[in-house]
Amino acid sequence: MGASEQRVNEIAQYMEGLGRRARVASRALARAETGAKNRALLAIADAIAAAAPRLQAENRKDLDAGRMRGLEPALLDRLELTDARIATMVEGLRQIVALPDPIGAISDMSYRPSGIQVGRMRVPLGVIGIIYESRPNVTVDAAALCLKSGNAAILRGGSEALHSNQALAVCIGEGLAAAGLPEAAVQVVETADRAAVGELLRMKDYVDVIVPRGGKSLIERVSREALIPVIKHLDGVCHVFIDAEADAAKAVRIALNAKTQRYGTCNTLETLLVDATRAPALLPELAQRYREKGVELRGCARTRDILPDCVAATEQDWRAEYLAPILAVRVVDGLDAAIDHINTYGSQHTDAIVTENYTHARRFLREVDSSSVMVNASTRFADGFEYGLGAEIGISTDKLHARGPVGLEGLTSLKYVVFGDGQIRQ
Amino acid sequence: MGASEQRVNEIAQYMEGLGRRARVASRALARAETGAKNRALLAIADAIAAAAPRLQAENRKDLDAGRMRGLEPALLDRLELTDARIATMVEGLRQIVALPDPIGAISDMSYRPSGIQVGRMRVPLGVIGIIYESRPNVTVDAAALCLKSGNAAILRGGSEALHSNQALAVCIGEGLAAAGLPEAAVQVVETADRAAVGELLRMKDYVDVIVPRGGKSLIERVSREALIPVIKHLDGVCHVFIDAEADAAKAVRIALNAKTQRYGTCNTLETLLVDATRAPALLPELAQRYREKGVELRGCARTRDILPDCVAATEQDWRAEYLAPILAVRVVDGLDAAIDHINTYGSQHTDAIVTENYTHARRFLREVDSSSVMVNASTRFADGFEYGLGAEIGISTDKLHARGPVGLEGLTSLKYVVFGDGQIRQ
Repeated sequence: MGASEQRVNEIAQYMEGLGRRARVASRALARAETGAKNRALLAIADAIAAAAPRLQAENRKDLDAGRMRGLEPALLDRLELTDARIATMVEGLRQIVALPDPIGAISDMSYRPSGIQVGRMRVPLGVIGIIYESRPNVTVDAAALCLKSGNAAILRGGSEALHSNQALAVCIGEGLAAAGLPEAAVQVVETADRAAVGELLRMKDYVDVIVPRGGKSLIERVSREALIPVIKHLDGVCHVFIDAEADAAKAVRIALNAKTQRYGTCNTLETLLVDATRAPALLPELAQRYREKGVELRGCARTRDILPDCVAATEQDWRAEYLAPILAVRVVDGLDAAIDHINTYGSQHTDAIVTENYTHARRFLREVDSSSVMVNASTRFADGFEYGLGAEIGISTDKLHARGPVGLEGLTSLKYVVFGDGQIRQ
Repeated sequence: MGASEQRVNEIAQYMEGLGRRARVASRALARAETGAKNRALLAIADAIAAAAPRLQAENRKDLDAGRMRGLEPALLDRLELTDARIATMVEGLRQIVALPDPIGAISDMSYRPSGIQVGRMRVPLGVIGIIYESRPNVTVDAAALCLKSGNAAILRGGSEALHSNQALAVCIGEGLAAAGLPEAAVQVVETADRAAVGELLRMKDYVDVIVPRGGKSLIERVSREALIPVIKHLDGVCHVFIDAEADAAKAVRIALNAKTQRYGTCNTLETLLVDATRAPALLPELAQRYREKGVELRGCARTRDILPDCVAATEQDWRAEYLAPILAVRVVDGLDAAIDHINTYGSQHTDAIVTENYTHARRFLREVDSSSVMVNASTRFADGFEYGLGAEIGISTDKLHARGPVGLEGLTSLKYVVFGDGQIRQ
């Protein structure tokens, strides 16, 4: 056996050990009382607050190593555990304590003609594998959401945050122990070897769902290699359509906010569609406002007839997720053309119409096949907190299981419960 | 290019054509009104009723070919389109008309502090691929469930039912056309080549979910090869646990019904667990009753102390789905041992406790990790019709998306809908 083969075998064994312990812990967690889960979350918050100096010392090791390796400043920034970020983690834990426990809730109870009573009970999925990149606060957020929803977690953060994540794992373990819950309920993968990710994605017997959090290349790799279901979103090519009957002030406000409130988020506007009857009046005003914000416009031929300075958009621009101050602009002939464009080029993430027309609003809501469809609101609202989920583990552009912002409910399933008095099937 | 490679290419092209047309049809179906979908279902029912002689003539071709190929009598029986079976298909279509349309329903609407109003709308999944074996009635059942839930369907039945399925497809096409819906909403794969199944399982861009209906080898092949999410159940290793505080009459009635009402179904009892304190009194009576029905018992050592004639169970028996008049029997020490046995050896399908003890019932419901958990009722009730779903496309032992009996709702998803008055994100 070669050295590299042996290494892979060792990692496979290590990961299987994590998986086996997670599966056992998941059973205890599934039946843990709400009070015990909340006590653990509060104890983790206290442990993190008390360990701040130690956490920052470990974090400095990661920052120093990152600088040595020439990590980009943006990445180093995300990696840093500042006082404010530690306080935010602690506050986030307390917020998750305040959320209602989804587990054990029974809904839809009804009597059937046979005399049995049938309902559905919300239950944990079991073991969640989370794969993420540099930000160490994800370690605590993800652990807390899994814990509250009664799931065991296996966390695999970026290798550049290894010391920080291990120090946070110690705090999490202390909190779990203080509440009498198994420490294997949350396990952090302690090797930087990328083979560990491959193993995690294939452990069908031990892991029920994988949640990747990070850039597109991470999510693509996870989707390609996983033998386990994945909750993910790939692209956020979001649209705002200014309808023939849009209120002009709302149209300008929403189109501007959806693009410029933040550039790097998945619910940011990437292609603006404008009804041909409104383009001559609205596009010059919008172009002026975007110019003030430093946004580059890339327009179709009809857009450039109105805005001669505008760069010409190519076919690729309709599919682009810029995540930058660039916006594609297309003039369309009415609602049907807008819906057609969105269903053809969009990524089924978030799309909005600006209109005062009742029938157009209804048709847009029904016919645009995206995880969030909006009328007269900025696409930037597509977010677990804004939707009232209380927390967000990610956004799903898939249709099966969870769609759109995923909160605690997305980490649960429903089982049927049947109450009888000795009924048998005839 | 070799002949076989060329054949595979031709099939790939053929299947891609089906997929592309299904995707286009799915858009029309997603926005189809309830009335149009119901008119199509009734027109299909009428077309089938009117075409009975032609359907049976085509069915005879399949039966003759099957006899020539030496198909087993049980398979030939399932293949036959008798008058009664045609009447049942027609009746089934009318029942699906009577079910409420799940599509477009909006739930959980609430105002958020930002002023936006958020809810969730039920929407179709898109294109459903159904892979099944010899029974031609599945062609009609599956088409009807997909149609009612606003999904396009690609149906791939067994090669031994090819003529029957094509004749049914003609009736389905007539019904769709009569209601003004696209005929590509339901397409039957017209080649017996097994390569077509492989293609169907890989057409990520055109198919949203695969539902296999058939024996274990089919489902295992589909699970192994599919690049698309699969709604499936593999095994039904169901348990009844007779608790220390069981009512004796209920225990005997349920244990007998769960095993003997039908042997070949996935919700049939396969392992009976009996609390050690009740075994000496109950096992002899149960053994007598099972003997009268011709059921062979395979017991653990403690069972055989009480029933000396009983065959010895091996480790394999605890994992066996007999689908036959055979029952594994194990004496256990209390509730914890029973739950442990079920979570270790079971298939997370359906498990029941017989008890009058409130706390034991509550713990069993919470801690047994199966898609259906029951108190004082026969496992045979785990069924879409018995649960009031109105129809059943299958039973899922997976946890993601759909769990337990899957009705129309399992073929749908939820998207977020947001209503605003020009709100922007601060």
